[in-house]
Amino acid sequence: MPDEASFTLDPRLAQDTVPLGNLPLSRVLLMNDANYPWLILVPRRPNLVELIDLDNSGQATLMIEIAQAARALKEITACDKLNVAALGNTVRQLHVHVIARRKDDPAGARPVWGTVPAQAYAAAERDRLAGALRAALGLR
Amino acid sequence: MPDEASFTLDPRLAQDTVPLGNLPLSRVLLMNDANYPWLILVPRRPNLVELIDLDNSGQATLMIEIAQAARALKEITACDKLNVAALGNTVRQLHVHVIARRKDDPAGARPVWGTVPAQAYAAAERDRLAGALRAALGLR
Repeated sequence: MPDEASFTLDPRLAQDTVPLGNLPLSRVLLMNDANYPWLILVPRRPNLVELIDLDNSGQATLMIEIAQAARALKEITACDKLNVAALGNTVRQLHVHVIARRKDDPAGARPVWGTVPAQAYAAAERDRLAGALRAALGLR
Repeated sequence: MPDEASFTLDPRLAQDTVPLGNLPLSRVLLMNDANYPWLILVPRRPNLVELIDLDNSGQATLMIEIAQAARALKEITACDKLNVAALGNTVRQLHVHVIARRKDDPAGARPVWGTVPAQAYAAAERDRLAGALRAALGLR
Protein backbone atom coordinates (compact mmCIF):
# COMPACT_ATOMS: atom_id res chain seq x y z
CA MET A 1 0.00 0.00 0.00
CA PRO A 2 1.68 3.30 -1.00
CA ASP A 3 2.86 5.56 1.82
CA GLU A 4 2.18 2.98 4.48
CA ALA A 5 5.74 3.27 5.79
CA SER A 6 5.15 6.90 6.74
CA PHE A 7 1.86 6.22 8.56
CA THR A 8 1.84 6.77 12.30
CA LEU A 9 -1.16 6.19 14.52
CA ASP A 10 -2.46 9.18 16.45
CA PRO A 11 -1.30 8.82 20.08
CA ARG A 12 -4.79 9.39 21.50
CA LEU A 13 -6.20 6.58 19.33
CA ALA A 14 -3.29 4.35 20.37
CA GLN A 15 -3.89 5.09 24.05
CA ASP A 16 -7.64 4.40 24.00
CA THR A 17 -7.58 1.13 22.06
CA VAL A 18 -6.23 -2.40 21.66
CA PRO A 19 -4.72 -3.10 18.21
CA LEU A 20 -6.33 -6.08 16.43
CA GLY A 21 -4.29 -6.10 13.22
CA ASN A 22 -4.26 -4.73 9.68
CA LEU A 23 -6.79 -5.11 6.89
CA PRO A 24 -5.46 -4.21 3.40
CA LEU A 25 -6.05 -0.50 4.00
CA SER A 26 -6.91 0.02 7.65
CA ARG A 27 -5.46 -0.71 11.03
CA VAL A 28 -8.22 -2.22 13.16
CA LEU A 29 -8.47 -1.11 16.77
CA LEU A 30 -10.79 -2.25 19.56
CA MET A 31 -11.88 0.67 21.73
CA ASN A 32 -11.09 -0.13 25.35
CA ASP A 33 -14.63 0.66 26.47
CA ALA A 34 -16.71 -2.20 27.80
CA ASN A 35 -19.87 -0.08 27.44
CA TYR A 36 -20.06 -0.91 23.72
CA PRO A 37 -18.31 -3.33 21.34
CA TRP A 38 -16.53 -0.66 19.30
CA LEU A 39 -14.07 -0.96 16.43
CA ILE A 40 -12.07 1.86 14.90
CA LEU A 41 -10.61 1.63 11.39
CA VAL A 42 -7.64 3.86 10.60
CA PRO A 43 -6.48 3.91 6.96
CA ARG A 44 -2.69 3.46 7.01
CA ARG A 45 -1.77 6.40 4.84
CA PRO A 46 -0.15 9.57 6.09
CA ASN A 47 -1.85 12.92 6.59
CA LEU A 48 -5.47 11.87 6.08
CA VAL A 49 -8.13 13.94 7.80
CA GLU A 50 -11.28 13.60 5.70
CA LEU A 51 -12.80 10.63 3.84
CA ILE A 52 -12.33 12.71 0.70
CA ASP A 53 -8.58 12.91 1.35
CA LEU A 54 -8.54 9.26 0.25
CA ASP A 55 -8.52 8.68 -3.50
CA ASN A 56 -11.52 6.88 -5.06
CA SER A 57 -9.87 3.49 -4.78
CA GLY A 58 -9.06 4.08 -1.12
CA GLN A 59 -12.63 5.18 -0.44
CA ALA A 60 -13.95 2.01 -2.06
CA THR A 61 -11.59 -0.17 -0.04
CA LEU A 62 -12.52 1.64 3.14
CA MET A 63 -16.22 0.96 2.51
CA ILE A 64 -15.45 -2.75 2.06
CA GLU A 65 -13.53 -2.76 5.34
CA ILE A 66 -16.31 -0.86 7.15
CA ALA A 67 -18.75 -3.52 5.98
CA GLN A 68 -16.40 -6.29 7.18
CA ALA A 69 -16.12 -4.66 10.60
CA ALA A 70 -19.89 -4.19 10.77
CA ARG A 71 -20.57 -7.83 9.87
CA ALA A 72 -18.00 -9.03 12.41
CA LEU A 73 -19.62 -7.01 15.19
CA LYS A 74 -23.09 -8.16 14.16
CA GLU A 75 -22.00 -11.81 14.17
CA ILE A 76 -20.25 -11.66 17.53
CA THR A 77 -22.39 -9.32 19.60
CA ALA A 78 -26.09 -9.32 20.34
CA CYS A 79 -26.55 -5.83 18.92
CA ASP A 80 -29.74 -4.04 17.92
CA LYS A 81 -28.08 -1.47 15.65
CA LEU A 82 -24.73 -0.51 14.20
CA ASN A 83 -23.35 3.03 14.27
CA VAL A 84 -20.77 4.00 11.63
CA ALA A 85 -19.11 7.40 11.79
CA ALA A 86 -16.11 9.44 10.71
CA LEU A 87 -16.26 12.56 12.86
CA GLY A 88 -12.78 13.81 13.77
CA ASN A 89 -13.97 16.56 16.09
CA THR A 90 -11.27 15.80 18.65
CA VAL A 91 -8.76 13.49 16.88
CA ARG A 92 -8.03 14.81 13.39
CA GLN A 93 -6.44 11.67 11.92
CA LEU A 94 -9.04 9.99 9.68
CA HIS A 95 -10.64 7.15 11.60
CA VAL A 96 -14.00 5.40 11.29
CA HIS A 97 -16.00 4.22 14.27
CA VAL A 98 -18.02 1.02 13.85
CA ILE A 99 -20.01 0.45 17.02
CA ALA A 100 -22.43 -2.27 18.08
CA ARG A 101 -25.31 -0.68 19.94
CA ARG A 102 -27.97 -2.19 22.18
CA LYS A 103 -31.19 -0.51 23.19
CA ASP A 104 -30.22 -0.98 26.83
CA ASP A 105 -26.61 0.21 26.51
CA PRO A 106 -25.51 3.28 28.52
CA ALA A 107 -26.09 5.74 25.66
CA GLY A 108 -29.55 4.47 24.64
CA ALA A 109 -30.88 6.62 21.79
CA ARG A 110 -27.99 9.08 22.11
CA PRO A 111 -24.66 8.90 20.26
CA VAL A 112 -21.90 7.28 22.31
CA TRP A 113 -19.35 10.09 22.12
CA GLY A 114 -19.12 12.05 25.36
CA THR A 115 -22.19 10.37 26.84
CA VAL A 116 -20.74 8.21 29.62
CA PRO A 117 -17.09 7.74 30.61
CA ALA A 118 -15.26 4.83 29.01
CA GLN A 119 -15.16 1.69 31.14
CA ALA A 120 -11.97 -0.32 30.56
CA TYR A 121 -12.43 -4.03 29.86
CA ALA A 122 -11.41 -6.68 32.33
CA ALA A 123 -8.42 -8.42 30.72
CA ALA A 124 -10.20 -11.73 30.13
CA GLU A 125 -13.21 -10.11 28.49
CA ARG A 126 -10.99 -7.88 26.34
CA ASP A 127 -8.94 -10.87 25.19
CA ARG A 128 -12.04 -12.95 24.45
CA LEU A 129 -13.66 -10.19 22.35
CA ALA A 130 -10.38 -9.28 20.63
CA GLY A 131 -9.86 -12.94 19.74
CA ALA A 132 -13.36 -13.37 18.35
CA LEU A 133 -13.08 -10.17 16.29
CA ARG A 134 -9.64 -11.10 14.95
CA ALA A 135 -11.02 -14.48 13.87
CA ALA A 136 -14.08 -12.93 12.19
CA LEU A 137 -11.90 -10.40 10.36
CA GLY A 138 -9.17 -12.88 9.40
CA LEU A 139 -6.56 -10.93 11.38
CA ARG A 140 -3.53 -12.41 13.09
CA MET B 1 -32.60 1.23 -9.67
CA PRO B 2 -34.33 -1.97 -8.50
CA ASP B 3 -37.03 -1.60 -5.86
CA GLU B 4 -37.03 2.17 -6.07
CA ALA B 5 -40.79 2.20 -6.66
CA SER B 6 -41.39 0.73 -3.22
CA PHE B 7 -39.11 3.19 -1.42
CA THR B 8 -40.79 5.61 0.94
CA LEU B 9 -38.98 8.26 2.94
CA ASP B 10 -39.28 8.03 6.72
CA PRO B 11 -41.77 10.72 7.86
CA ARG B 12 -39.40 12.12 10.49
CA LEU B 13 -36.67 12.61 7.88
CA ALA B 14 -39.21 14.20 5.54
CA GLN B 15 -40.40 16.57 8.24
CA ASP B 16 -36.94 17.76 9.30
CA THR B 17 -35.48 18.41 5.85
CA VAL B 18 -35.75 20.07 2.45
CA PRO B 19 -35.48 17.67 -0.51
CA LEU B 20 -32.69 18.59 -2.95
CA GLY B 21 -33.11 15.80 -5.52
CA ASN B 22 -31.92 12.30 -6.34
CA LEU B 23 -28.42 10.99 -7.01
CA PRO B 24 -28.30 7.56 -8.71
CA LEU B 25 -28.81 5.74 -5.41
CA SER B 26 -29.70 8.31 -2.77
CA ARG B 27 -32.27 10.96 -2.15
CA VAL B 28 -30.44 14.09 -0.99
CA LEU B 29 -31.98 16.10 1.82
CA LEU B 30 -30.89 19.38 3.41
CA MET B 31 -31.45 19.34 7.16
CA ASN B 32 -33.53 22.37 8.13
CA ASP B 33 -31.05 23.43 10.80
CA ALA B 34 -29.18 26.67 10.27
CA ASN B 35 -26.68 25.71 12.98
CA TYR B 36 -24.76 23.52 10.52
CA PRO B 37 -24.79 22.95 6.74
CA TRP B 38 -26.05 19.35 6.90
CA LEU B 39 -26.94 16.92 4.14
CA ILE B 40 -28.64 13.56 4.56
CA LEU B 41 -28.38 10.80 1.95
CA VAL B 42 -31.13 8.18 1.93
CA PRO B 43 -30.60 5.19 -0.41
CA ARG B 44 -33.86 4.75 -2.33
CA ARG B 45 -34.36 1.06 -1.67
CA PRO B 46 -36.99 -0.38 0.64
CA ASN B 47 -36.39 -1.79 4.11
CA LEU B 48 -32.78 -0.74 4.59
CA VAL B 49 -31.59 -0.24 8.16
CA GLU B 50 -27.84 -0.93 8.15
CA LEU B 51 -25.10 -0.08 5.63
CA ILE B 52 -24.60 -3.84 5.35
CA ASP B 53 -28.22 -4.27 4.24
CA LEU B 54 -27.04 -2.75 0.94
CA ASP B 55 -25.31 -5.16 -1.45
CA ASN B 56 -21.65 -4.54 -2.32
CA SER B 57 -22.52 -2.51 -5.39
CA GLY B 58 -24.92 -0.35 -3.40
CA GLN B 59 -22.30 0.20 -0.71
CA ALA B 60 -19.78 1.29 -3.33
CA THR B 61 -22.27 3.69 -4.91
CA LEU B 62 -23.17 5.09 -1.52
CA MET B 63 -19.52 5.82 -0.77
CA ILE B 64 -19.24 7.69 -4.08
CA GLU B 65 -22.33 9.73 -3.20
CA ILE B 66 -21.03 10.43 0.34
CA ALA B 67 -17.82 11.77 -1.21
CA GLN B 68 -19.83 13.95 -3.62
CA ALA B 69 -21.87 15.38 -0.77
CA ALA B 70 -18.73 15.99 1.28
CA ARG B 71 -16.99 17.79 -1.60
CA ALA B 72 -20.08 19.91 -2.26
CA LEU B 73 -20.25 21.02 1.37
CA LYS B 74 -16.51 21.70 1.47
CA GLU B 75 -16.71 23.83 -1.69
CA ILE B 76 -19.71 25.85 -0.58
CA THR B 77 -19.20 26.33 3.14
CA ALA B 78 -16.26 27.64 5.12
CA CYS B 79 -15.99 24.45 7.15
CA ASP B 80 -13.12 23.23 9.30
CA LYS B 81 -14.15 19.56 9.32
CA LEU B 82 -16.69 17.18 7.85
CA ASN B 83 -18.66 14.68 9.90
CA VAL B 84 -20.01 11.58 8.15
CA ALA B 85 -22.25 9.18 10.05
CA ALA B 86 -24.87 6.46 9.73
CA LEU B 87 -26.28 6.08 13.23
CA GLY B 88 -29.98 5.23 13.15
CA ASN B 89 -30.50 5.43 16.89
CA THR B 90 -33.81 7.28 16.50
CA VAL B 91 -34.79 6.91 12.80
CA ARG B 92 -34.23 3.34 11.67
CA GLN B 93 -34.36 3.90 7.89
CA LEU B 94 -30.78 3.86 6.59
CA HIS B 95 -29.57 7.44 6.17
CA VAL B 96 -26.13 9.02 6.13
CA HIS B 97 -25.39 12.40 7.67
CA VAL B 98 -22.77 14.56 5.94
CA ILE B 99 -22.25 17.68 8.02
CA ALA B 100 -19.98 20.71 7.58
CA ARG B 101 -18.56 21.66 10.96
CA ARG B 102 -16.87 24.83 12.13
CA LYS B 103 -14.81 25.18 15.27
CA ASP B 104 -17.13 27.96 16.42
CA ASP B 105 -20.43 26.21 15.60
CA PRO B 106 -22.87 25.51 18.44
CA ALA B 107 -21.67 21.94 19.01
CA GLY B 108 -17.92 22.72 19.03
CA ALA B 109 -15.97 19.51 19.68
CA ARG B 110 -19.17 17.56 20.44
CA PRO B 111 -21.28 15.63 17.91
CA VAL B 112 -24.26 17.62 16.61
CA TRP B 113 -27.00 15.14 17.54
CA GLY B 114 -28.99 16.23 20.54
CA THR B 115 -26.57 19.03 21.40
CA VAL B 116 -28.57 22.19 20.63
CA PRO B 117 -32.11 22.47 19.24
CA ALA B 118 -32.44 22.76 15.47
CA GLN B 119 -32.78 26.35 14.22
CA ALA B 120 -34.92 26.54 11.07
CA TYR B 121 -33.43 28.47 8.15
CA ALA B 122 -34.85 31.78 7.04
CA ALA B 123 -36.44 31.10 3.64
CA ALA B 124 -33.93 33.16 1.65
CA GLU B 125 -30.91 31.52 3.27
CA ARG B 126 -32.42 28.06 2.87
CA ASP B 127 -33.11 28.68 -0.82
CA ARG B 128 -29.63 30.11 -1.43
CA LEU B 129 -27.90 27.13 0.21
CA ALA B 130 -30.23 24.59 -1.41
CA GLY B 131 -29.55 26.16 -4.81
CA ALA B 132 -25.79 26.13 -4.35
CA LEU B 133 -25.82 22.50 -3.19
CA ARG B 134 -28.09 21.39 -6.04
CA ALA B 135 -25.71 23.04 -8.51
CA ALA B 136 -22.63 21.45 -6.91
CA LEU B 137 -24.29 18.01 -6.94
CA GLY B 138 -25.78 18.32 -10.44
CA LEU B 139 -29.32 17.99 -9.07
CA ARG B 140 -32.40 19.59 -10.55
